[in-house]
Amino acid sequence: MPTWLLPEKIADVLPSEARKIEELRRSFLDRFRVYGYEMVVPPMLEYLESLLTGAGKDMDLRTFKLVDQVSGRSMGIRADMTTQVARIDAHLLNRASVTRLCYAGSVLQTEPSGLHATREPFQIGAEIYGHAGLEADAEIQELVLSSLELIGMKAVRIDLCHVGVLKAILQLDPVAKRDEDILFALLESKDVPELQAISANYEPVVRDALLALPSLYGDLSVIEKAAQILPRTTGIQNALNDLQYLGEIAGKEHVTVDLSDLRGYHYHSGVMFSVFVDGLPNAVARGGRYDQVGEAFGRARPATGFSLDLRELARLMPVAERKPAIRAPWGNDPALRSRIRELRDQGEIVIQVMPGHENEQDEFECKQSLVCSEGQWILQNVD
Amino acid sequence: MPTWLLPEKIADVLPSEARKIEELRRSFLDRFRVYGYEMVVPPMLEYLESLLTGAGKDMDLRTFKLVDQVSGRSMGIRADMTTQVARIDAHLLNRASVTRLCYAGSVLQTEPSGLHATREPFQIGAEIYGHAGLEADAEIQELVLSSLELIGMKAVRIDLCHVGVLKAILQLDPVAKRDEDILFALLESKDVPELQAISANYEPVVRDALLALPSLYGDLSVIEKAAQILPRTTGIQNALNDLQYLGEIAGKEHVTVDLSDLRGYHYHSGVMFSVFVDGLPNAVARGGRYDQVGEAFGRARPATGFSLDLRELARLMPVAERKPAIRAPWGNDPALRSRIRELRDQGEIVIQVMPGHENEQDEFECKQSLVCSEGQWILQNVD
Repeated sequence: MPTWLLPEKIADVLPSEARKIEELRRSFLDRFRVYGYEMVVPPMLEYLESLLTGAGKDMDLRTFKLVDQVSGRSMGIRADMTTQVARIDAHLLNRASVTRLCYAGSVLQTEPSGLHATREPFQIGAEIYGHAGLEADAEIQELVLSSLELIGMKAVRIDLCHVGVLKAILQLDPVAKRDEDILFALLESKDVPELQAISANYEPVVRDALLALPSLYGDLSVIEKAAQILPRTTGIQNALNDLQYLGEIAGKEHVTVDLSDLRGYHYHSGVMFSVFVDGLPNAVARGGRYDQVGEAFGRARPATGFSLDLRELARLMPVAERKPAIRAPWGNDPALRSRIRELRDQGEIVIQVMPGHENEQDEFECKQSLVCSEGQWILQNVD
Repeated sequence: MPTWLLPEKIADVLPSEARKIEELRRSFLDRFRVYGYEMVVPPMLEYLESLLTGAGKDMDLRTFKLVDQVSGRSMGIRADMTTQVARIDAHLLNRASVTRLCYAGSVLQTEPSGLHATREPFQIGAEIYGHAGLEADAEIQELVLSSLELIGMKAVRIDLCHVGVLKAILQLDPVAKRDEDILFALLESKDVPELQAISANYEPVVRDALLALPSLYGDLSVIEKAAQILPRTTGIQNALNDLQYLGEIAGKEHVTVDLSDLRGYHYHSGVMFSVFVDGLPNAVARGGRYDQVGEAFGRARPATGFSLDLRELARLMPVAERKPAIRAPWGNDPALRSRIRELRDQGEIVIQVMPGHENEQDEFECKQSLVCSEGQWILQNVD
């Protein structure tokens, strides 16, 4: 087997792609900063108990495990950074006030999340802790939308859902409640025939509600429709009111509602959302409220946030234009060295050609050359 | 065991430190860019054979291993990125011309490299491939010095050594050559008594040379002294000439020579260097020439480069000054929202206070507040 072969769904990022990712990374982090989000960097690995706290079995299977040679204990490589950041809020910062945190880094997964997905996403995200009201959800959603807009993403659409709808429906029938896991999966895949089969013996009101959910998607008017079709319980009303409030703040033109888009149902506790852009069928970003996340670390605080994979996003971006470079000869002449230094300090890319390589093809587009004319180093256009 | 406990020598990076590291990261990458170095991002994990190719046993023991659930093969988490970048040059880019690459990312090590070291350094570095001449070494050394100067490091000193000196001495005596590994370790630790013991039966000229090495350190004049003391072989002469050339380019005031500072002797092939700054006894950066690095990937190209740990460097930097933030109330008034957006677009940090949290202590220093006065949202100083 050749030594340069990489494992499946693991890849190097070459210069043009790396530059795109780096630019996106800076743009997002700068945006998070002006919203008051402070950056933290959780470690690549932790003890398994900490890393998988609160996360489902799904995350367990997707986490690479290894043994700590120092302690002999099991550790995991992070497959997701959300729980890590919640640990930092709960334990390390331990602030009583509202706390806004953001993060960016590689995560590793034992299996790719989809056919074309990488096993090493570059996760970037933001979280707000300590405020239970919808204002925090609204801020997070605005932050996603404005960040994507800033990098030039067109036709950004946010798709809203709410854990409370299904939770409230299931409270009406203990038999259905027992099937929660299966129902969640069937709704997620909008598998109506199987939903009909499994719900045959449920309370009629619950059965009707479950069968209605997969078709309750579309613009904000879906909320009104849902209010008419679904049982009139307080739980459902509250959830629909939340969606209405957030939908209006984000702006009708940006929002759709999908009451069966339940990905993340198990660990979310309120509004969930997915963000779509032109050119990618899958969501580019996902987020929502998960108020119980800090509990395992000794401090349950309201929490809501979002994250996305910068590698996937970078694939949608046009190739960044390359800044033309300046060619300069190698030499130890102080005047040459100081002129090169000056140009570089101004942000110009100056490539010093190594002796003997004068006729090589440049990887950079060099439109100018530094040449010595009458004792002066001047820039000359390259034809 | 509390769930928030991290493994030994593994730590979260909290906001003030994270900001320093992020600023250093950008400053280095921008500097690399104006020198024409292109960024690449190798993966966090690879098959063990690729990752440990050419690296010594030392790197093997320091690499975390795990099994790929997809292929069943052994993989390693990178403990160093140098070999990965050489693989990219040798195989993926496959350019005939001089290639300049840079990289930045976390690496993980099973054991810390020193008492106060982390097991998760943040490695950043630059490499130049395809030019065997000293000009490439000179450029790399200039790049380190100018990058460190740019971030405000004072009293930067570069310490030069050359693999060729010891190699040439050992060629004069097969008995000594057989002890190469032990001799290298003894020289590295400047253990003169043990050197005397082990070299008792060597050729006198070899013995004298080995015993002289630990004292051959100091400013550039050491090179001349070495030329007088050490055997007059071509190998030694060439190595000393290399050191003289590079020392003069870097500038006498910045350079020291230490002929027994042989860290990395096994994988280097020419000049090696360590960079020291005020406030840290250990080198902040290390580098050198290792021309054989690409061989295992099917293409041996001349190569020279350097790397450093940004986390360690960040500890030397003063706490970055915080940009004062602006407090704004929560609200859905379009005039308020548009004023906030405008300020953020100008780069101001605007914190919207969540309802009910008005009296909380801010984490940000807010010197101004956005208040409504006669229908206009204006900035007001906070006393």
